Amino acid sequence: MDAPSTALRRPLADLETPALLLDTPRLQANLRRMAQRMAALGVRLRPHVKTAKCLPVAAATDAANLAAGVPGAAEHGPITVSTLREADQFAAAGWRDITYAVGLTANKFAHVRRLLDAGVALTVILDSVDAARVLSAAAAAWPTPVQVLIEIDTDGQRAGLRPDVAALLDVAAALGGPGVRLDGVLTHCGGAYHGHGEAALRAIAEQERAGAVHAAERLRAAGFAAPVVSVGSTPTALFAEQLAGVTEVRAGVYVFMDLMMAALGVCRLDEIAASVLTAVIGHQPDRGWTLIDAGWMALSRDRGLAGEFTDQGLGLVCDAAGSPIGEDGGEWIVSAANQEHGIVTHRSGDPTRRLELPVGTLLRVLPNHACATAAQHAHYELLGADGRVNGRWARFMGW
Amino acid sequence: MDAPSTALRRPLADLETPALLLDTPRLQANLRRMAQRMAALGVRLRPHVKTAKCLPVAAATDAANLAAGVPGAAEHGPITVSTLREADQFAAAGWRDITYAVGLTANKFAHVRRLLDAGVALTVILDSVDAARVLSAAAAAWPTPVQVLIEIDTDGQRAGLRPDVAALLDVAAALGGPGVRLDGVLTHCGGAYHGHGEAALRAIAEQERAGAVHAAERLRAAGFAAPVVSVGSTPTALFAEQLAGVTEVRAGVYVFMDLMMAALGVCRLDEIAASVLTAVIGHQPDRGWTLIDAGWMALSRDRGLAGEFTDQGLGLVCDAAGSPIGEDGGEWIVSAANQEHGIVTHRSGDPTRRLELPVGTLLRVLPNHACATAAQHAHYELLGADGRVNGRWARFMGW
Repeated sequence: MDAPSTALRRPLADLETPALLLDTPRLQANLRRMAQRMAALGVRLRPHVKTAKCLPVAAATDAANLAAGVPGAAEHGPITVSTLREADQFAAAGWRDITYAVGLTANKFAHVRRLLDAGVALTVILDSVDAARVLSAAAAAWPTPVQVLIEIDTDGQRAGLRPDVAALLDVAAALGGPGVRLDGVLTHCGGAYHGHGEAALRAIAEQERAGAVHAAERLRAAGFAAPVVSVGSTPTALFAEQLAGVTEVRAGVYVFMDLMMAALGVCRLDEIAASVLTAVIGHQPDRGWTLIDAGWMALSRDRGLAGEFTDQGLGLVCDAAGSPIGEDGGEWIVSAANQEHGIVTHRSGDPTRRLELPVGTLLRVLPNHACATAAQHAHYELLGADGRVNGRWARFMGW
Repeated sequence: MDAPSTALRRPLADLETPALLLDTPRLQANLRRMAQRMAALGVRLRPHVKTAKCLPVAAATDAANLAAGVPGAAEHGPITVSTLREADQFAAAGWRDITYAVGLTANKFAHVRRLLDAGVALTVILDSVDAARVLSAAAAAWPTPVQVLIEIDTDGQRAGLRPDVAALLDVAAALGGPGVRLDGVLTHCGGAYHGHGEAALRAIAEQERAGAVHAAERLRAAGFAAPVVSVGSTPTALFAEQLAGVTEVRAGVYVFMDLMMAALGVCRLDEIAASVLTAVIGHQPDRGWTLIDAGWMALSRDRGLAGEFTDQGLGLVCDAAGSPIGEDGGEWIVSAANQEHGIVTHRSGDPTRRLELPVGTLLRVLPNHACATAAQHAHYELLGADGRVNGRWARFMGW
């Protein structure tokens, strides 16, 4: 993140559109905020690298965690991944403590073994007796054991076992042999994405914490080792009042933030670090439309929390400097899109409200969901505090 | 598309999931169907390579067009692109007659010039006097002229000028100087994606044809050259009864087909060539959920025509052989998704209806919109008539 020489700083107008911008001062502020919170709570942070899929973003995260004194922080600290391809990429670059937080199936065992053989301390998750038996049988032949966390469901949103079900102990008992090591529990309270404001987010964080800790205590009471209690999401990480019994927190989208996090009250609009630069390509004045060259390919089709909070269409429209256009945090949204075309309208849908902008005018679109929007791009154009582009970071994709 | 040796044919179980499958016999049948239709209508086909973004798919398309005797077909025939990156990739591989079908802005002029300098016969589109003036001024300094089509709006869905507006002649008049050559008109009737059945699609195709031809005739009557009348979409290309006055047809998604095309009556489910292979990773039996390792990252969040036709969720669930599960063309859909998790339910939402499938069971998901789903993947796993994988083709992304 060293500042390059002035000669390399390019104005936004030098970029071809659409392009994914990463405001690095905002990124750094977001990284510091989370690091300071985790340092204050005294809990290890295992960032989820699925949001950025970018080595320099992870390096900046580690640097922020080290600077803030987050427990367990290191030059290549612990990370969470959503794909084994992320594990490959980060392992090759030096990250060796990796948790793969999607239920494991047998067609990925060979890949898991390659990671173990390469010296990765890999943790996987599962939530059924069947999966535990299949993994235990296969891993018995592996030279290095794989660490296993049992996935816990603390909000009814996705995978995992409820903290109080009998099956929890059955899954633990089904893990056995030299190839697997039960390490504890993991939960992700996706319900946090539906709670608005501090009180609601605090309550959800406590629900996530209490459920995971309860499950771990049940395992321990039954004689199983459960040293790890892993919880987290960006909202619960930032709003938890205390994390007694939790040993690590996972969070991903906080590095960029987005309109969903803003809707929940987790961040302000001017803390969102990722945006899509786009150009006006035409108008349909009788319909109040401004056409832009960012369609769903550049923005994704993620509608965020449109059904629960303010509908931001496919993204909130800002001027080239990044300020939402109009009053009250922005009046103009991308209300529809084709593959490479976006249609900008006033959020009221009133066709007499028009953006009178010449063809070629640059705009920026804030994403509903930064993970989804970033996934549509092969790299980040780095935006400095001076509003100029001073570099490019690569992302990767695939499985 | 030569058949590799048996030794290279792998069962689906050898793949890691999620993976994008391309059924090559279905692809070939789709290519033949369109080629035969265009040959019968006697109109040049300019395939839209945005769907596949894949050199071998384009090569197979050219081969099918040559075999069927489509006018203008060649080893590297005319193509349509949605990004200048597609133009770069295809130009480097030998395709030289390229139409970039998104309104052009000044921040792409340097890129356009590089393509012209590399010998590409590039056509661009615009729909305003401003854009015409800005391009004419810049292109005056270019050694090779760029061909320009004026975009026509034949259905009120996106960009372009209505065929009968006065501004059409103003735009033509604003194009001038040695760097630009007005070549005619281009339209895309996106409204075709909302018409169901043969009669409706025939009517929309005629609306598209008549509007574009009318605009070209107005240009000619005013003394402008307009040799090219370019129309098209997969539905209108396949259902047009006649294309008098049309000189070329563009179509993209026909190479793969998808649930949207099936909903319109353009194809059958068993003609869809692209699908996502996924594995069962767990269950929530009390909610009737089967969890799979294909989330929105693998499927995209495209909801297709959920608001107008049968809601297919984020995709229709098939068994590993590709047959929809249940009666009536399929009863199971991906009803919700996170980044790497999909939730499969009965389409009724009835939680007592459960898929009782072991963890690790392979399933295939048919895409709502093949362009969007394919965009989430870096390559196609090629599926032969024997149901085995016999190769891999790369896709590219970005702008």
